[in-house]
Amino acid sequence: MRLSKLFLPITKDLPSDATIKSHQLMLRTGMIKQSAAGIYSWLPLGFKVMKKIEQIVREEQNKIGAQELLMPTIQSAEIWKESGRYDDYGEEMLRIKDRQGREILYGPTNEELITDIFRSSIKSYKSLPQILYHIQWKFRDEIRPRFGVMRCREFYMKDAYSFDVDDESAKLSYNKMFYAYLKTFKRLGLEAIPMAADTGPIGGDLSHEFVILAETGESKIFADKSILKIKLDKYNEDKSSLEKMRNEFSEIYAVTDEKFSKKEFDKKVKKDNQMITKGIEVGHIFYFSDKYSKPLNCFVDTKDGKKTSIKMGSYGIGVSRLVAAIIEAKFLNNKMKWPKSVSPFDVVIIPNFNKNNTENLKKAEKVYEELKKQNIDALLDDTDESMSSKFTKHELIGIPNQIIIGSKSTSDKFEYKNDKDVSSIISLEEIKSKLI
Amino acid sequence: MRLSKLFLPITKDLPSDATIKSHQLMLRTGMIKQSAAGIYSWLPLGFKVMKKIEQIVREEQNKIGAQELLMPTIQSAEIWKESGRYDDYGEEMLRIKDRQGREILYGPTNEELITDIFRSSIKSYKSLPQILYHIQWKFRDEIRPRFGVMRCREFYMKDAYSFDVDDESAKLSYNKMFYAYLKTFKRLGLEAIPMAADTGPIGGDLSHEFVILAETGESKIFADKSILKIKLDKYNEDKSSLEKMRNEFSEIYAVTDEKFSKKEFDKKVKKDNQMITKGIEVGHIFYFSDKYSKPLNCFVDTKDGKKTSIKMGSYGIGVSRLVAAIIEAKFLNNKMKWPKSVSPFDVVIIPNFNKNNTENLKKAEKVYEELKKQNIDALLDDTDESMSSKFTKHELIGIPNQIIIGSKSTSDKFEYKNDKDVSSIISLEEIKSKLI
Repeated sequence: MRLSKLFLPITKDLPSDATIKSHQLMLRTGMIKQSAAGIYSWLPLGFKVMKKIEQIVREEQNKIGAQELLMPTIQSAEIWKESGRYDDYGEEMLRIKDRQGREILYGPTNEELITDIFRSSIKSYKSLPQILYHIQWKFRDEIRPRFGVMRCREFYMKDAYSFDVDDESAKLSYNKMFYAYLKTFKRLGLEAIPMAADTGPIGGDLSHEFVILAETGESKIFADKSILKIKLDKYNEDKSSLEKMRNEFSEIYAVTDEKFSKKEFDKKVKKDNQMITKGIEVGHIFYFSDKYSKPLNCFVDTKDGKKTSIKMGSYGIGVSRLVAAIIEAKFLNNKMKWPKSVSPFDVVIIPNFNKNNTENLKKAEKVYEELKKQNIDALLDDTDESMSSKFTKHELIGIPNQIIIGSKSTSDKFEYKNDKDVSSIISLEEIKSKLI
Repeated sequence: MRLSKLFLPITKDLPSDATIKSHQLMLRTGMIKQSAAGIYSWLPLGFKVMKKIEQIVREEQNKIGAQELLMPTIQSAEIWKESGRYDDYGEEMLRIKDRQGREILYGPTNEELITDIFRSSIKSYKSLPQILYHIQWKFRDEIRPRFGVMRCREFYMKDAYSFDVDDESAKLSYNKMFYAYLKTFKRLGLEAIPMAADTGPIGGDLSHEFVILAETGESKIFADKSILKIKLDKYNEDKSSLEKMRNEFSEIYAVTDEKFSKKEFDKKVKKDNQMITKGIEVGHIFYFSDKYSKPLNCFVDTKDGKKTSIKMGSYGIGVSRLVAAIIEAKFLNNKMKWPKSVSPFDVVIIPNFNKNNTENLKKAEKVYEELKKQNIDALLDDTDESMSSKFTKHELIGIPNQIIIGSKSTSDKFEYKNDKDVSSIISLEEIKSKLI
């Protein structure tokens, strides 16, 4: 893509409510545009990042055998009355009356709807276990939406739901998801810590939240550093392996401020290993057994001919929120660096040229065409700004690799800056091999 | 995927309102499940087909240089009041009040919102032309939702919007989209006819609808057969080529019943070439110049320093509707055949086995694993039903290629049935080469 053609409305005027760096950066680089309070349009740059995150989330869900479907955004109030949550949910639920006067709502979550789908379809233990998920927009009518897409009203989430015949099998599903989450965040270039959590309005008796480390995060975190060193690679999807993994994580101290006790911290964690930092919640998993299946009459026949309520868990990842969370974690010293796996482009080509001398632009165009042939998604900065203003701009856009075509480049070698800001003068072939 | 694991709730009990074949088939094969009046969940089989359609639509939009973004489902009423359509739109618009009492709505279309995004970003003719699109859920509160996903309330659409400095350039954008639409429908395995259309509530002075041929379609079509023989390959994206293409289509008679005149039909079309059939509208494109940009103050500076209103067009494809439309076109003699490009699986493996003899199942599993290695997306029917009931089921599911492992197969050759129902006994290598 040529930058001159890209719909990228870079802006310098920030609204006064843009107080955190992800909100500011997303507005400045034209990733999003607010269209109403807590409601955003995703412009091409932001959209590309979000789609890449979505795809990684999807792939890791598929790997553990979860199946994708899609529930609608608008739900009938009926099933919420059946579960008893219609009155409980409060004003965050966007309640609507349609033209026939029927009560409907914009789904803030999907436990009821997925249970309704499941109860009418699955009758026997033979069809279990199952994990179903979808990636869909949700709405919560926050009284004070803020922090851009971090706490907005319309947001994009992956919700998964597991269905098992008994608690033991349900725990395996839970552990699989736990594992998939850690792998997902790793692929997103994030350091995520799973923390035992309260279950809140979802209910149930087992829950973890996944918090990524970011200096500007909303929750304070107290943890033993060694939790970041657990090697995920040594585990696999086998039941016993997953149990060992869960145990390894559980044994290491890591809590948010709600559960913090200085005494316990000092007792359990050596001074050198004590980490006090901040984090952002990007995922939350729950096991709530038959909290929804019972009131909603979701039963299966067991092996010995009896009926049992299905044991369920639910598992969320905030996809749109992750875009902001990654910025909070990766925007340092006024410079953004997208992890390669979610960068909007693989590389940016920055030629030094002006109206009177477009030689470097021509070189850049050749490089651009060559990369295109290899399916390398390059952004060509063909604007006639000065190099210094281009560099400043790209420090915000945050594409991790740069090809700079200026005084340091020769006829067949170019300056290449990698994601660690290490510069080298190398041939196009070498650059390609680094990018593929 | 193993069929025993696939979440595919096949049902025989059809609701009385399922009167058309696509609605019936989608319910019977567990592609969708109704969750409220005119609101559906997309189960894994239906979801896969819809996603494949979406991806083809996306690729053809990208090929003409359109850029993808994503607007939210919930919009503020304000911009609709600015354009003057808030009162005009009537009860199909789902109007909502949020907890603060602000008027919001579930977007039935996006002309206002995209104009709002554009006006605040683009100030100069230099940034034009642009085509932006998104693929998003919309809601229209139909008084009588019916025909399954064909006329439902929450539906998935691709909307594109073009922005040009003058009418001539805008016409080129229109023609590009016209071309992209024909290519899209061709890739979907459909015969689509573009027809000059009225502009309706969107407004404007140039409009085409794209109708695909299906015996059970809602609109009656009168056309010269030769319109189906126009070769798209001879055209390209150049301005003059696109104009020639538009002319070739315009010169051939093709109208819906609204515009039909028997006299004209007989005069313009030779008896042998007269085609009277039915069709389903799957796309609609509009050029409405500055109908929205003027009231919404969307202006750019021109080359000679003046201001001009941006000339806009809008271009829709019903993505969720296409799933049903393809069924209406391809479900014949009680048999479904998905076009390869959108089939939920590339091939289905059907072994003949029972509890006492699972030899063929084992063979099938080997074949399945081999295909998986080649990234061929196979469905393995590992259920213990009889072969005749399996065949009946797969005639509905509609995967166009089958590998049948039964009496006709030898140790290293298998019965392979292609999408034309032609059967041959060939090796796995030969099968692979046909599927890749």
